[in-house]
Amino acid sequence: MHENMNEKCAVVGIYNHEAASKLAYFSLHALQHRGQEAAGISSADGNKLHTIKKRGLVMRVFDEAKLQTLSGTSAIGHTRYSTAGDDSILDAQPVFARYDLGEMAIVHNGNLTNAQEVRDALIKKGAIFQTFMDTENLIHLIAKSSKEKLIERIIDAVQRIEGAFSLVILSRTKMFAVRDRHGFRPLSLGQLPNGGYIVASETCAFDLVGATFIRDVEPGELLIFEEGKEPQSIKIFEPTPKHCIFEYVYFARPDSSVFGQSVYQARKTMGQELAKIAPVEADLVVPVPDGGVPSAIGYAQESGIPYEMGIMRNHYIGRTFIEPTQEMRDLKVKMKLSPMIDIIKGKRVIVVDDSIVRGTTSRRIVRMLKEAGASEVHMRISSPPTTDPCFYGVDTPSKDKLIAANMSTQEICDFVEADSLAYLDEEALLRSVNSDMHEEKYCTACFTGKYIV
Amino acid sequence: MHENMNEKCAVVGIYNHEAASKLAYFSLHALQHRGQEAAGISSADGNKLHTIKKRGLVMRVFDEAKLQTLSGTSAIGHTRYSTAGDDSILDAQPVFARYDLGEMAIVHNGNLTNAQEVRDALIKKGAIFQTFMDTENLIHLIAKSSKEKLIERIIDAVQRIEGAFSLVILSRTKMFAVRDRHGFRPLSLGQLPNGGYIVASETCAFDLVGATFIRDVEPGELLIFEEGKEPQSIKIFEPTPKHCIFEYVYFARPDSSVFGQSVYQARKTMGQELAKIAPVEADLVVPVPDGGVPSAIGYAQESGIPYEMGIMRNHYIGRTFIEPTQEMRDLKVKMKLSPMIDIIKGKRVIVVDDSIVRGTTSRRIVRMLKEAGASEVHMRISSPPTTDPCFYGVDTPSKDKLIAANMSTQEICDFVEADSLAYLDEEALLRSVNSDMHEEKYCTACFTGKYIV
Amino acid sequence: MHENMNEKCAVVGIYNHEAASKLAYFSLHALQHRGQEAAGISSADGNKLHTIKKRGLVMRVFDEAKLQTLSGTSAIGHTRYSTAGDDSILDAQPVFARYDLGEMAIVHNGNLTNAQEVRDALIKKGAIFQTFMDTENLIHLIAKSSKEKLIERIIDAVQRIEGAFSLVILSRTKMFAVRDRHGFRPLSLGQLPNGGYIVASETCAFDLVGATFIRDVEPGELLIFEEGKEPQSIKIFEPTPKHCIFEYVYFARPDSSVFGQSVYQARKTMGQELAKIAPVEADLVVPVPDGGVPSAIGYAQESGIPYEMGIMRNHYIGRTFIEPTQEMRDLKVKMKLSPMIDIIKGKRVIVVDDSIVRGTTSRRIVRMLKEAGASEVHMRISSPPTTDPCFYGVDTPSKDKLIAANMSTQEICDFVEADSLAYLDEEALLRSVNSDMHEEKYCTACFTGKYIV
Amino acid sequence: MHENMNEKCAVVGIYNHEAASKLAYFSLHALQHRGQEAAGISSADGNKLHTIKKRGLVMRVFDEAKLQTLSGTSAIGHTRYSTAGDDSILDAQPVFARYDLGEMAIVHNGNLTNAQEVRDALIKKGAIFQTFMDTENLIHLIAKSSKEKLIERIIDAVQRIEGAFSLVILSRTKMFAVRDRHGFRPLSLGQLPNGGYIVASETCAFDLVGATFIRDVEPGELLIFEEGKEPQSIKIFEPTPKHCIFEYVYFARPDSSVFGQSVYQARKTMGQELAKIAPVEADLVVPVPDGGVPSAIGYAQESGIPYEMGIMRNHYIGRTFIEPTQEMRDLKVKMKLSPMIDIIKGKRVIVVDDSIVRGTTSRRIVRMLKEAGASEVHMRISSPPTTDPCFYGVDTPSKDKLIAANMSTQEICDFVEADSLAYLDEEALLRSVNSDMHEEKYCTACFTGKYIV
Repeated sequence: MHENMNEKCAVVGIYNHEAASKLAYFSLHALQHRGQEAAGISSADGNKLHTIKKRGLVMRVFDEAKLQTLSGTSAIGHTRYSTAGDDSILDAQPVFARYDLGEMAIVHNGNLTNAQEVRDALIKKGAIFQTFMDTENLIHLIAKSSKEKLIERIIDAVQRIEGAFSLVILSRTKMFAVRDRHGFRPLSLGQLPNGGYIVASETCAFDLVGATFIRDVEPGELLIFEEGKEPQSIKIFEPTPKHCIFEYVYFARPDSSVFGQSVYQARKTMGQELAKIAPVEADLVVPVPDGGVPSAIGYAQESGIPYEMGIMRNHYIGRTFIEPTQEMRDLKVKMKLSPMIDIIKGKRVIVVDDSIVRGTTSRRIVRMLKEAGASEVHMRISSPPTTDPCFYGVDTPSKDKLIAANMSTQEICDFVEADSLAYLDEEALLRSVNSDMHEEKYCTACFTGKYIV
Repeated sequence: MHENMNEKCAVVGIYNHEAASKLAYFSLHALQHRGQEAAGISSADGNKLHTIKKRGLVMRVFDEAKLQTLSGTSAIGHTRYSTAGDDSILDAQPVFARYDLGEMAIVHNGNLTNAQEVRDALIKKGAIFQTFMDTENLIHLIAKSSKEKLIERIIDAVQRIEGAFSLVILSRTKMFAVRDRHGFRPLSLGQLPNGGYIVASETCAFDLVGATFIRDVEPGELLIFEEGKEPQSIKIFEPTPKHCIFEYVYFARPDSSVFGQSVYQARKTMGQELAKIAPVEADLVVPVPDGGVPSAIGYAQESGIPYEMGIMRNHYIGRTFIEPTQEMRDLKVKMKLSPMIDIIKGKRVIVVDDSIVRGTTSRRIVRMLKEAGASEVHMRISSPPTTDPCFYGVDTPSKDKLIAANMSTQEICDFVEADSLAYLDEEALLRSVNSDMHEEKYCTACFTGKYIV
Repeated sequence: MHENMNEKCAVVGIYNHEAASKLAYFSLHALQHRGQEAAGISSADGNKLHTIKKRGLVMRVFDEAKLQTLSGTSAIGHTRYSTAGDDSILDAQPVFARYDLGEMAIVHNGNLTNAQEVRDALIKKGAIFQTFMDTENLIHLIAKSSKEKLIERIIDAVQRIEGAFSLVILSRTKMFAVRDRHGFRPLSLGQLPNGGYIVASETCAFDLVGATFIRDVEPGELLIFEEGKEPQSIKIFEPTPKHCIFEYVYFARPDSSVFGQSVYQARKTMGQELAKIAPVEADLVVPVPDGGVPSAIGYAQESGIPYEMGIMRNHYIGRTFIEPTQEMRDLKVKMKLSPMIDIIKGKRVIVVDDSIVRGTTSRRIVRMLKEAGASEVHMRISSPPTTDPCFYGVDTPSKDKLIAANMSTQEICDFVEADSLAYLDEEALLRSVNSDMHEEKYCTACFTGKYIV
Repeated sequence: MHENMNEKCAVVGIYNHEAASKLAYFSLHALQHRGQEAAGISSADGNKLHTIKKRGLVMRVFDEAKLQTLSGTSAIGHTRYSTAGDDSILDAQPVFARYDLGEMAIVHNGNLTNAQEVRDALIKKGAIFQTFMDTENLIHLIAKSSKEKLIERIIDAVQRIEGAFSLVILSRTKMFAVRDRHGFRPLSLGQLPNGGYIVASETCAFDLVGATFIRDVEPGELLIFEEGKEPQSIKIFEPTPKHCIFEYVYFARPDSSVFGQSVYQARKTMGQELAKIAPVEADLVVPVPDGGVPSAIGYAQESGIPYEMGIMRNHYIGRTFIEPTQEMRDLKVKMKLSPMIDIIKGKRVIVVDDSIVRGTTSRRIVRMLKEAGASEVHMRISSPPTTDPCFYGVDTPSKDKLIAANMSTQEICDFVEADSLAYLDEEALLRSVNSDMHEEKYCTACFTGKYIV
């Protein structure tokens, strides 16, 4: 149950479909889990770009009339998670600009590690920044590039930025998709039923619009979509994959396939590995829903201990602004999660979650289970201790807030008031996500502090 | 996945707590699954009743300021499911009235089978009806009773009505809870941490407000809450229990305990029974989320076939008014449910759901699994064929729309395009919900057509 | 500028027009000045009544889709002014009821003086009241009448009530309009272009829908609208006219004709009379907009002193919830009214308003003019001192809040800080509104305390 | 009654007041008539700028909580009129940017005539434009200026732009106000009660916040507001006044003083001049409210023909989306304006309006008066024929839509179906606005086509 680490965005691009913005809309709906704060779509009708973006869920931002104003056969879209508390809509995407070659719009999933330097350099040369988004850097770099053609400028621009970026760029007639050399964030290519194309952060967007998976956009690859042509591929960077392993642990939707593997399957294997390296005698395996479900199933299958939905999640949850009374302790967790008392009572429970960030939610869950009568609560985490913040597009608390950066596993166990606590180790995690790959393929910095330089 | 049978309401009453309306609010939130169309609360401050009711989810209807106007130490609340398409808020509850003894408000879960006769008789005597709710009958019967005291009038009134009713009635200083003689709909009594009391349709409301379960309000029982006294019990009717067995099958929240038994446990046992009477060779047991989860777990445990979350439910679903393109078939189901292709592909799948109403949703699910590559799809339903409509408070389609009323199981199997289809039989269902009880304790009319006369 | 006395409602009825609810909608828009809190329409399609009512201005309550659900060729409508601070929509009109003869809906403009006795008597006989509106009495009286036919029952019912009422009643096939014997509140009959009929509180509703004025509904008259027939008239009461003279002073729209005379003309004559009985040497005549405009024009014409729009009204005014700073004195008035400094400066100003209720607003206006540089401010009021509250459908402060009930004219002059103050006297007021009528035709209770017994 | 020519904006700046954003809010409310589409405020707290801007009226965009986030002792604000039909909030002001000297925000009233060239030049140098507003040019020019200090850069930037601009610029500690050399659009300086300063498009904003008028910002002047200092003045351009004369005719609020003269007084004099040059025998002088009121008063005073409010304006008007029936002709005008039939009937009416743009509204008004029974309708316009579009900040239809550009006065008279039609001539207009000034002081391009080169 995550309130502490959040994927910042999802992107989608549709090329060559007469209902392009509508397809972008449904795709964004499928990607809503990657960002609920704002949504936006830009379309291109050959002459002009049209953009609508607004705070709120995809379904609330758009209606039929709005989608109709987003005319044209290509469209890009974005959903945004944001920490910003203010009212500004300026930080929603797509970012649109008119520049010397015409008009363009960009959507971006990721985080640039040299954003500040790039921004400072641009500002020194007289650029102005109207938002707080990294994406604005890209617009400037493309506009200011001395190259003649847009494609050359995009190459020019992305070579100056570092960090994580899965980009989709729309001009009046073309669409471009780029992924950083490490391929931190996912980006997949699919075929629409009518012959057009889709690129999206996760494959779960494909199913809804009837698209079929072709392949991932490669790390370091630029894909160019142009009318009447197959997508052309240019290798901008030598690929050195460092896929975000946390996409498997928590972010991606379980029905997606990212970095070449089923997310659900990866999570289930993590649970199996966890059962192997951290077995415990108990009566039940219970997931913390929804994140812990696949790994709990894996743990249960491997250990032979029965799997039970011992904790229920209430899906009518929204934000309440009603102050609870003194007596309603842990209300925030209880409004979301509630125990199956008759299942838990008197039982030794293995509770499986995907990660522990600050530890406070885990403690509330353990307490809830004990109040429900669990005789023992053994917490099993399907990833290694989260010790380091992410600089590649995930919103993480600072290191001093990460419990595993400041306490030993035993101390954490005491803090969350569990009878035992065990994490998956890095090696087992890597085995789970792709047995035949060695470590280098994934970014595990949030567990190891080993950042790409 | 139910779009066809729906519980119509939930009720709650809080007595003797200084934040009574706040507790009613959080309780209604926990009961939101029983009705999402409208919500309302009446409170009593000793002198006057205060009522707020409106269309929308509990969280949207109330805010801190509104709850503060609902002052007093007792409160009753209601969430409503409604088929009415109009804009009228008049049909929300609580129903409030001034009458010769002062003021009262009533909330009602259930359905009166003699509502029309009672209404006609009242109208003949000059009563006017301003809403379409059965509850208005009760207000009239109480107001027109020749008895002197409110409690006598309530007894008088409920003796004239027939059918299903779990009522909570609020006067300026007292609260009353009544259940019909058959106890069709659930109603439980709990103790608040401060010594006050709560009655609610399901026990899942208790946990959130820190209440502890005391016992069910008995069929035919009237409970009177009065200041400075223990709740007093009056037996109005000789109890002849006919609890709605569909509460176990689908309506109640799995973490509730209704009619003396854990809902989750009952559902899991249904799955186990189903595995015994309708085994099939397969690779996976997959629930239709969320309803089918506990019975699928039971089926998997009994059969030894692995349990997998082969279908994902998207919880960001709301109503979209965007027309899909021609290519987006079965969009409505696909926006809610999506298959784990890597899990399903090439596998023989047992898919477990709680019931089949019209058959169209089931067919979409089977097709979705086949499109995802399932080699076989065996549908298992954890209740008997739904052949008859409910007259006791559940919104069901008419008999001609109920597929099981018009087709044999084999015909249904063909219709939904499954490789095999099996239902739980009535006997096994009854075993699941309470092994030591005989049939008479439950109303199984929706499976058998045996209505109480 | 009135914040203190407010007309409570407007009513409209449309009979025999295929767009009946649409005509009711536009009529209510024209009557919006009589009530801004809630709006509602009921229509009858021959078989069934349809009702929509909601808080808010007419334009916000209805849209095309809603009007379409209000099908049928007859419709009645209501706009409501309300003092009630709560959220209840129950007190909006039309009031709808099912009763022994079928369905009916009622709209009511006025106030019943024996409402409490009627209500108590009804409650003693077992009636329940779900709202706080007088109108509910009527529904009950009609429903409980021992007469057989609706028309007899309406006659029966209105004979039991006292006070002010302009009613329009809708059944499934007929419409009825009734006015109390005194004709306190206006109600006029018009002809629709297609041959159908309209009744409305003011004739300004006629123009918008293309209707032509036929005549007023008479005091004590019942009009029956039935398909294929001319409206039939029944004299229920011997008419003893006591028309609300304040309709001329302030309530009615200047482009309406009420009680047989143009409102604008009446107001202008009041100004002329005022100039005759309270002349003063000055440079300018300035109205307090919008209410004081016609009488200021009359005053200027009679006196020969130039008329100037020396005070501007800001029509973007709404409710602000922003706290002003200490320095922003009289912000509430200043956001609505502002002086033409260059016109006012150094001038002796006659400021004309329709009435003084509490005196605080008048004081703010005088101060504002003096701050703008007026050398003298002479206040002239186009009605007599308001000394008594209204019991016939106008929301007035209690007597202790009415400045003229507690101070002499000189004291009021001192209080409002004017250089002189004069009111129109009763005789001149009566002359203004209809020269050939004697006093008895009008209710002047708010100026004289002479209430009808 | 204008639906065709609209002032595009208003600006305000507050310096050195602890409730700076609150004062900006109330000032914008007073300036609401200059733009109703969007509103925005930026404040500076010494370290940082805060901006909130949104579609809607000032009162809807802000609430107490939002104003509190706009902390600091200086603030600038903007209300916007826009023709843009899309959903983009990007085109609201203030425009905010981070640049090499820190942060700034700009509000702009006017229109740059060389915007496209400036923009093209900037784009050629690699600038990107994220909005469609001229204002973005300024931000770029300031950011890219080679000068070291902000004040030098502002001077640098405004020297490169041409056209109409009344600007207010906010940095973290200072505020700047600039007006173009011609002083097209108004901008006045006032003193706050606490010693701070206000600049605003119109003086009507001063009264509400208790400020007193000091003087106009001069054409070509730059005012610098700095802590602890008097405002410093720099003459950037040699002033060559060309004040927009249409501010007097229609845009400015009558209680404002612009370009050194009372707007109300100017309008009244126009009416007097009109009576001199275009007299006609008639019974009544009637204004088209609200615009025609002061000139109708002037006309009546000069001619001796009685002034009457023969047309009423309904201020509850909003946008309705309800389709009228066939019978409801001219509904759009009739919902806003309605005739005083008893005043008009049988009378020869002089109807006074400020201008005729397309002619269709004027025709509807004439027809309405004739339907109300006017025996003759003489239209008098208090400005010369509008023959040419504005390029200095007013939204006008293109020349082919301007009736006076395409028809003679007699043809227009026939078109609007009036009995006679007369305009004020240019000379008389100039006399009205300032008798001792010669033509050159004002821009009369919309009447003459004489644009500044």
